[in-house]
Amino acid sequence: MTLEPGVQVIFTPSGRRGRFEPGTTVLDAARSLGVDLDSVCGGRGLCGRCQVVPAEGSFPKHGIESSDGHLSPRSPDEDEFDRLRGLAAGRRLGCKAHVERDVLVDVPPESQVHRQVVRKGIPVRDFVIDPVVRLYEVEIEPPALDRPTGALRRLLEALAREWRELEPQVEDLSADLFVTTQLQPALDAGEGRVTVAIHDGRAITGVWPGLHDRSLGVALDIGSTTIAGHLADLATGEVLASDGVMNPQIRFGEDLMSRVSYAMLHEGGAAEMTRVVREAVTSLITGLANHASVPVEEILELTIVGNPIMHHLLLGIDPTPLGSAPFALAVDSAVRVRASEIDLPGHPGARVYLLPCIAGHVGADAAAVILSETPYLADEVTLIVDVGTNAEIVLGSRDRLLAASSPTGPAFEGAQISGGQRAAPGAIERVRIDKDTLEPRFRVIGSSRWSDEIGFEASTRRTGVTGICGSGIVEVIAELYLAGVIAPDGSIDGSTAARSPRVVPDGRTFSYLLHEGGPGADLGDGEVGPASPRILVTQNDVRAIQLAKAALYAGARLLMDHLGVATVDRVKLAGAFGSQIDPLHALVLGLVPDAPLDRVGAAGNAAGTGALIALLSGEARREIERVVRTVEKIETAVEPRFQEHFVDAMGIPHATAPSTHLSTVVQLPNSNTGAGIHQRRRRDGNRRTVRA
Amino acid sequence: MTLEPGVQVIFTPSGRRGRFEPGTTVLDAARSLGVDLDSVCGGRGLCGRCQVVPAEGSFPKHGIESSDGHLSPRSPDEDEFDRLRGLAAGRRLGCKAHVERDVLVDVPPESQVHRQVVRKGIPVRDFVIDPVVRLYEVEIEPPALDRPTGALRRLLEALAREWRELEPQVEDLSADLFVTTQLQPALDAGEGRVTVAIHDGRAITGVWPGLHDRSLGVALDIGSTTIAGHLADLATGEVLASDGVMNPQIRFGEDLMSRVSYAMLHEGGAAEMTRVVREAVTSLITGLANHASVPVEEILELTIVGNPIMHHLLLGIDPTPLGSAPFALAVDSAVRVRASEIDLPGHPGARVYLLPCIAGHVGADAAAVILSETPYLADEVTLIVDVGTNAEIVLGSRDRLLAASSPTGPAFEGAQISGGQRAAPGAIERVRIDKDTLEPRFRVIGSSRWSDEIGFEASTRRTGVTGICGSGIVEVIAELYLAGVIAPDGSIDGSTAARSPRVVPDGRTFSYLLHEGGPGADLGDGEVGPASPRILVTQNDVRAIQLAKAALYAGARLLMDHLGVATVDRVKLAGAFGSQIDPLHALVLGLVPDAPLDRVGAAGNAAGTGALIALLSGEARREIERVVRTVEKIETAVEPRFQEHFVDAMGIPHATAPSTHLSTVVQLPNSNTGAGIHQRRRRDGNRRTVRA
Repeated sequence: MTLEPGVQVIFTPSGRRGRFEPGTTVLDAARSLGVDLDSVCGGRGLCGRCQVVPAEGSFPKHGIESSDGHLSPRSPDEDEFDRLRGLAAGRRLGCKAHVERDVLVDVPPESQVHRQVVRKGIPVRDFVIDPVVRLYEVEIEPPALDRPTGALRRLLEALAREWRELEPQVEDLSADLFVTTQLQPALDAGEGRVTVAIHDGRAITGVWPGLHDRSLGVALDIGSTTIAGHLADLATGEVLASDGVMNPQIRFGEDLMSRVSYAMLHEGGAAEMTRVVREAVTSLITGLANHASVPVEEILELTIVGNPIMHHLLLGIDPTPLGSAPFALAVDSAVRVRASEIDLPGHPGARVYLLPCIAGHVGADAAAVILSETPYLADEVTLIVDVGTNAEIVLGSRDRLLAASSPTGPAFEGAQISGGQRAAPGAIERVRIDKDTLEPRFRVIGSSRWSDEIGFEASTRRTGVTGICGSGIVEVIAELYLAGVIAPDGSIDGSTAARSPRVVPDGRTFSYLLHEGGPGADLGDGEVGPASPRILVTQNDVRAIQLAKAALYAGARLLMDHLGVATVDRVKLAGAFGSQIDPLHALVLGLVPDAPLDRVGAAGNAAGTGALIALLSGEARREIERVVRTVEKIETAVEPRFQEHFVDAMGIPHATAPSTHLSTVVQLPNSNTGAGIHQRRRRDGNRRTVRA
Repeated sequence: MTLEPGVQVIFTPSGRRGRFEPGTTVLDAARSLGVDLDSVCGGRGLCGRCQVVPAEGSFPKHGIESSDGHLSPRSPDEDEFDRLRGLAAGRRLGCKAHVERDVLVDVPPESQVHRQVVRKGIPVRDFVIDPVVRLYEVEIEPPALDRPTGALRRLLEALAREWRELEPQVEDLSADLFVTTQLQPALDAGEGRVTVAIHDGRAITGVWPGLHDRSLGVALDIGSTTIAGHLADLATGEVLASDGVMNPQIRFGEDLMSRVSYAMLHEGGAAEMTRVVREAVTSLITGLANHASVPVEEILELTIVGNPIMHHLLLGIDPTPLGSAPFALAVDSAVRVRASEIDLPGHPGARVYLLPCIAGHVGADAAAVILSETPYLADEVTLIVDVGTNAEIVLGSRDRLLAASSPTGPAFEGAQISGGQRAAPGAIERVRIDKDTLEPRFRVIGSSRWSDEIGFEASTRRTGVTGICGSGIVEVIAELYLAGVIAPDGSIDGSTAARSPRVVPDGRTFSYLLHEGGPGADLGDGEVGPASPRILVTQNDVRAIQLAKAALYAGARLLMDHLGVATVDRVKLAGAFGSQIDPLHALVLGLVPDAPLDRVGAAGNAAGTGALIALLSGEARREIERVVRTVEKIETAVEPRFQEHFVDAMGIPHATAPSTHLSTVVQLPNSNTGAGIHQRRRRDGNRRTVRA
């Protein structure tokens, strides 16, 4: 035993230890040791963030014979906190419990500022919550005649006095004008106590009377078609609401290039698109706040991701240069603006962080996907495709990361398909076709039953069967291929009409009748459900999907060429469409290069998840900014090899990489028949293993 | 002689020297030696800011045998610059002239960034121009497919490459959203060249195509009654226009406390006053730009001074706490906001700097007066009084500086005076009274003739004689005192009515008839000039001036008590009123403590001048922020001694410090008659020398 003065205090899980005068609060001891113990109220027993658990028992390894009861008895302040907000048995408020003898104190995860988070509902990797905005409650000295210090200076003095972690930088803190105007009223209402929000350790962006213990943020993914958002508690990481709205820019053009054309051809066109997208984002944010029953003014922070054109239009940047080579971005680094500067709602001091863009066609959404999927941390080679109207493709590992964009067009989203529609209730999303009878069965969004199951009719009376969405199209074409109705070159084989009345002549080609259609169901009280149209899969539909999947595949192959690999270890399908499609059918159709079926999976809305991670972690922002600078950008539009891969990939399955993995799962038709395709294979045969 | 390689280049006036490869440009040599040589275009022979004069002759002291013709011959670029913009004989463009042999090069003042300035028109001390906003022209690399760097990053790279002075901080430069949106269009229009404005070495706040060689700023002094502004060229310091407008807040109350009352008593009252003052400032700025024929969008920087209530109302801060003890400021440090945040016009990236406030009654205007008059640099004790509706008083030297505010009320501005009016054409501003006949003669604003001179009538036909302004009131009361019409206690001596019909009974007291008045003059064509009212100096007028001057004097005496001095070495009278009054009459009336007559002078609009200095010099901002922190604030409202001084100072000349200096200039009536006054003198006689 040493004869050092004071009592020994050891914190777990950090293992930090030190000696303190008896009577020191646990919070003070934690702070002086740099132990990660949260507190908003500054040690007044109000916020409950500093809860700790004194260990019971003997800890000879730590040199503590007994830790039991070595904190001061529970104080009246803790009783009061328990009465008002509840304090679990064994728990103490770190700011009110004093050390009396050697003691081991555990800091539970929820009392740590930088806590690991595992989220419910939204599939998100573990990361450490480290919000950019933090709240600090302080007591400010009243003004005095003989010391006529301004309120703002008294606030800074109080922050330096009460919050040692801030002390070194308090001199550099700026204050928003709003804070300057509201500080005195808040001091009056709070009787000398206020809570302030400090953004990035640099600016005071909010002030509230007394203790204010909630800070919210919104993570937004602005797609060409839909805008999705999560509303989260910045301190706990809890997602309070998630929602999506259509991007109203669709009326200016379905795909990205038609939006750019609109900006080029219409005076004020870009500004108009900026206005409508800001309005849509505003209504989404307002809706999220309503849904979670919180005031929109509590939103202090927003993160935004999107492809470069959505990114630029939101910021009010004319995207015209993105419409033609060399596809120059106005800004590629992360952008920080005030929410009010881009007309978004929230607290007057709310800040917006837009993740960095990678290249003219590979935007902040791709950066967010990378942040969410972290291929840069893995040894294995991961291929991530985020399929929207444009597909953004990322390939690589911790050694090297490449990214490209491929113009898949809107077919995967149900556009340019005869019976196509967006993924919405009533849309066919799953299809199976009997290889003998060619009879289909399917499921529609909004019903859990297959069309040949009992109760299907009843379960779709309100939605009807209104069309087919992207995942349904991919499945039906893959199934028709597996059933021999569609040939490897994509033509619908008219001879199969003999096998089934579902193969019907359609002008000079044939179509497949997926659904006969019919009138709306009688819902009672004179109400009639939606009518179901006749849904055909036409030759043109097959061609549209062939073009789209060839573009996607060719982009991925191009990146593989650049990385010098013939195979990938893992495939992640991101985005709304990517999350819906069945990996099996994706491989059958040849959307992505071959990979073991169990290593092909959905990543969900990885862009939105990346935005959420960036919302909750300043460290994640620094990380993705660092990673993005190292990503190699491949411009598909000017690579001759992309065209070659594209042509090669038109077949089903495409010529260059028929699946070895799949043949163990499903019986694939013989696909290597066309002479032209063979020829092309030979031309770049030195680059890859032809495995079929 | 040394055998060092290269040629020797010596710059004057700095004396810096170094050896360079022959062929080095003078600009590059200057930069590598840290010589202060300006350049905006970055060495392309466009801006002409880097002009130098190669010396002719022998400079043995410098080790240069001959400097003649030791630069390269005049280049075609210089011929072109001469043709377009003129290049004086002997002058060279530093960026186009190369050193060939040892040479002595002079950098004329106008080629220095940090030049000494002596201003015409506006009396302003010498200071070094060091604008916070600087312009930099750069050539930006075009984007390339294989290098999809965003335009903003390419701009930063170009700045780091071309502007070595910026290099270390380029990584930390942020860009306004406006700059991000306008960069690509500017690059297109400028064919790869843009000029950017960098604010405080931290933010890119403006961008223009090609070379943009003008940056403007506005310095504003917002008084309770009037708002004055100077429009200046930030690079040269030249004042392009000066103007003033009335403060429209006057309709909410003449003096400061009535404005605060309005804010307290009317819901939204403060916001209303904020709105109207911002509108007035906007119209002033627009007017200044129109007057100078420059676009308001070229204004990049504004500095603002004003008393604390004007300061707070402009910023949108409720001034209610300033209305009662302890007179707490919301913010005392310097405030930096965007012009757009407070609804002021200018470039979208224009920034506003408000000088620090000293205390609840001593504002940024007092700080500006200190910056302009620099008492903190002097050994002698200076008293500065800035007389507005409130008088702000500064006393001290390099050792110690004190400040206070004294509630003089609006009498010095012509309000609460029977014939009073603001200083405007037609107002009596100078008065002399014959001691024997008691006949007055006077001058009015707008005419250079005295009223007893030939041509006075003609010169005032258009203005009339419409009233009496502050300086006229001070003079007429001082003259009436010197003539024996007004007694030392301020009463108008009715017995003098026997000497002159101008002393007339007026109820229970007497008045002095200064001007008989009359109808308007016939201006021809049926037009009639303004009628002239009868102008009396009433007993109430004398009392109002007594109260005002006693408040001013008492404030100054209180500071002298605190500083422990019985006399001051120098008195500066600042502000519109302070600049108009005659030092002699100010001393006769006892507005300020006694001082040698030749050490009492006008400081002009020292607050406006201080704002101008802060506009043109970042160093001056740092200086005044430093000084203000050291100023000791004295609160007159709670010092019992202030009341004593106030009562003492009601007499004319006040009891405690009749002028020794003045008695050598004018014959003063015997003022030490009242027993009560003697008694008071004795009471604090131990504190000062009684010299009468």
